[in-house]
Amino acid sequence: MIDPVILKGFRDSLPSEEIPKKKIIRKLEDGFASYGFVPIDTPVLEYTNVLLGKGGGETDKQVFHFEDNGGREVAMRFDLTVPFARFLAAHTSELAIPFKRFHINKVWRGEKPQKGRYREFIQCDFDIVGVDNALADYEILSMMHSSFKLLGIDGYTFHLSHRGLFNTFLEKLGVLDKSVDILRTVDKLRKIGEEKVVEMLNEITADDEKSKKILAYITAGEGCSFRETLDDLKELAGGDCPASERLEEIYTLLSETGIADKFVLDPSITRGLDYYTGIVYETFLDQLPSLGSVCSGGRYNDLASLYTKERLPGVGSSIGLDRLLAGLEELKSPILENTASADVMVIHRPEDRVKALKAAAELREGGIRVDVYLAPEKKMKQIFEYAEKNRIPFSLTFSDSTYNLKNHNTRETFSSECLSEVIKAALA
Amino acid sequence: MIDPVILKGFRDSLPSEEIPKKKIIRKLEDGFASYGFVPIDTPVLEYTNVLLGKGGGETDKQVFHFEDNGGREVAMRFDLTVPFARFLAAHTSELAIPFKRFHINKVWRGEKPQKGRYREFIQCDFDIVGVDNALADYEILSMMHSSFKLLGIDGYTFHLSHRGLFNTFLEKLGVLDKSVDILRTVDKLRKIGEEKVVEMLNEITADDEKSKKILAYITAGEGCSFRETLDDLKELAGGDCPASERLEEIYTLLSETGIADKFVLDPSITRGLDYYTGIVYETFLDQLPSLGSVCSGGRYNDLASLYTKERLPGVGSSIGLDRLLAGLEELKSPILENTASADVMVIHRPEDRVKALKAAAELREGGIRVDVYLAPEKKMKQIFEYAEKNRIPFSLTFSDSTYNLKNHNTRETFSSECLSEVIKAALA
Repeated sequence: MIDPVILKGFRDSLPSEEIPKKKIIRKLEDGFASYGFVPIDTPVLEYTNVLLGKGGGETDKQVFHFEDNGGREVAMRFDLTVPFARFLAAHTSELAIPFKRFHINKVWRGEKPQKGRYREFIQCDFDIVGVDNALADYEILSMMHSSFKLLGIDGYTFHLSHRGLFNTFLEKLGVLDKSVDILRTVDKLRKIGEEKVVEMLNEITADDEKSKKILAYITAGEGCSFRETLDDLKELAGGDCPASERLEEIYTLLSETGIADKFVLDPSITRGLDYYTGIVYETFLDQLPSLGSVCSGGRYNDLASLYTKERLPGVGSSIGLDRLLAGLEELKSPILENTASADVMVIHRPEDRVKALKAAAELREGGIRVDVYLAPEKKMKQIFEYAEKNRIPFSLTFSDSTYNLKNHNTRETFSSECLSEVIKAALA
Repeated sequence: MIDPVILKGFRDSLPSEEIPKKKIIRKLEDGFASYGFVPIDTPVLEYTNVLLGKGGGETDKQVFHFEDNGGREVAMRFDLTVPFARFLAAHTSELAIPFKRFHINKVWRGEKPQKGRYREFIQCDFDIVGVDNALADYEILSMMHSSFKLLGIDGYTFHLSHRGLFNTFLEKLGVLDKSVDILRTVDKLRKIGEEKVVEMLNEITADDEKSKKILAYITAGEGCSFRETLDDLKELAGGDCPASERLEEIYTLLSETGIADKFVLDPSITRGLDYYTGIVYETFLDQLPSLGSVCSGGRYNDLASLYTKERLPGVGSSIGLDRLLAGLEELKSPILENTASADVMVIHRPEDRVKALKAAAELREGGIRVDVYLAPEKKMKQIFEYAEKNRIPFSLTFSDSTYNLKNHNTRETFSSECLSEVIKAALA
């Protein structure tokens, strides 16, 4: 006998988890499609050198890679961004530009498993590639907003910032050459606090005043409106510049389409990674700030430069689906509520089975999910345990010439001919 | 610059392929859910010994396996059946029995890539576990029938047979001990023809008469009705037996629910694998018999015996999604037709953009997919090339105070206030 164990950091998904997960993915897909975004998929396995590109180093250890039976060095994808860059380079001429794609699928990283961290997890990415303007930046933000609305999430806030504006500020301060280290430090503000950040900045700039100015910049948004913060940042960065104008234009679009209230300008958001060049953003659930960002991203100048000379600027986001699911669970979100395997369970005596199968077929035609209980010889107690385990709200039984429909939640019974209507009304 | 190549036997899925694939998967999922089947998922990577069980040998070379960074022997799943068996053993007490699950996801095999054969492909499995009766057999068959109907496929036929009845026949013939070899041979009938099969059977039975009797059994269904064939087979197998009674009961259910015309009793179907014990079946598209079976499976006695002492009989099917997609393409199936990325493209001048964004939001609220063209400075020629590449049927433009909606397929134009209605009517 082999022990049916799975690898550390990996998970089985039981129906009670898989049903809501699929529901959420569908909603997101529908939301993305409503904006004209299209789905793509890429292989799970790719050539290691293609996936790792120049960026070996730290990533290397986290990547599942091996030599296949044909002696090829292959690796499992560790994100959906690198395969997308490779995909863009390989198919540029076949794609309609601007290219708006989404990709929701698993990725693998050999990270140390810990609470909420897995070695196999789902990423949900969406990007607009081939255009660099405020309208595209706005569309990504607007789509994030409507995705969260579609998921029925109440309180969420998008924290927005602009890498280019921060760089203009750093240039004015004369520390632009240290921007990478500064960005990585600033990115830790939420975790380690202001004091520690200034300490670390001092080590980088060796200038207490400059460090304090950087702190003033990244905390300028606290308690202020988007408008006020934008004016403050502009001043700190030395007046109008292309980056501030872009932010200005995005803010105008958000305001004029009535969704600006969900966005705060938060210059502490930098997204530690150095490939962002324009707007950057993170998303927090108002009731669960400690959960961290559930949707992050930004604008980059040139996504596929490793693989093609074609310049492909873009803006994109990634939803951490596992983290979002954990958040929704903690918030007892209604979207996670109905995980019933079916709407009605049909229970029948052997002599009624044709009647039962026909009733089931008819209900299905009407869009009702029907589970015909397949072991009719079992005792009623066991049958109802099955219904309960599957959270099926209705049962349908037969007595001679009539149907008997029962709602297990309300304990109501019905002997009607319009079964579909009764069930649909109760489920609505 | 790195060449953006992918591995042989692997594929990128472009939107024109991914949109119909997702559509088909959704239809199947909805169909399965309408029968009370629930989704599960399992890890892509598992311990090699757990996945390979006792069955090493031939499979071994086809399996992508390696030592991970922690020194564990791991493998990528090569089907969805073994992980399901392992899953059942690990979670028996948490599941509602009978357990009806579906699982649609990728598997990997290091097979020699050739036309229609890939190293990464999608399997679509559905099983009923924990009950061994005609009702469960019927439900799987009935669900297969309604799945194919849901996909809008016209001509399809399910070829049904019973392993137990064949074994009863072989026992009567005194060659039951050679059943595995006989099964493998009989399974080749469609490919190599009657003569060759008899030749090979002779090598196994060393008895020409017995070989001819076996041929007579497996060809008994040709040109006959289910009823006639069943009577013939019963006689050849020596009269009524549990297997013939099961077939009888299944046939009654198929007839009484009005779907028997899609099923033929075809004793040449054996499914070469030796773990089937009851009904076995394959599915052929009437217009494409050479495509091979697009949905196959059968009843097994004890799926998870490698991992648990619990006896878990079941019946299940697997749809070869890639093969089915190839078939649908060849048949120019309507389900593959509408692969538009959006229903309407909104084209606007910069000064109209708020108007355009608001119109887009309103249409989306009405369930219309709207692509706001994001590079409004481009020439109309380029904009329409974009629409064409994305197969977007409508465009919406603005002139001062009115909307102008154009259907690119019919060249009709509309200046109405009920845009949603016009678009929905045209798309219906």
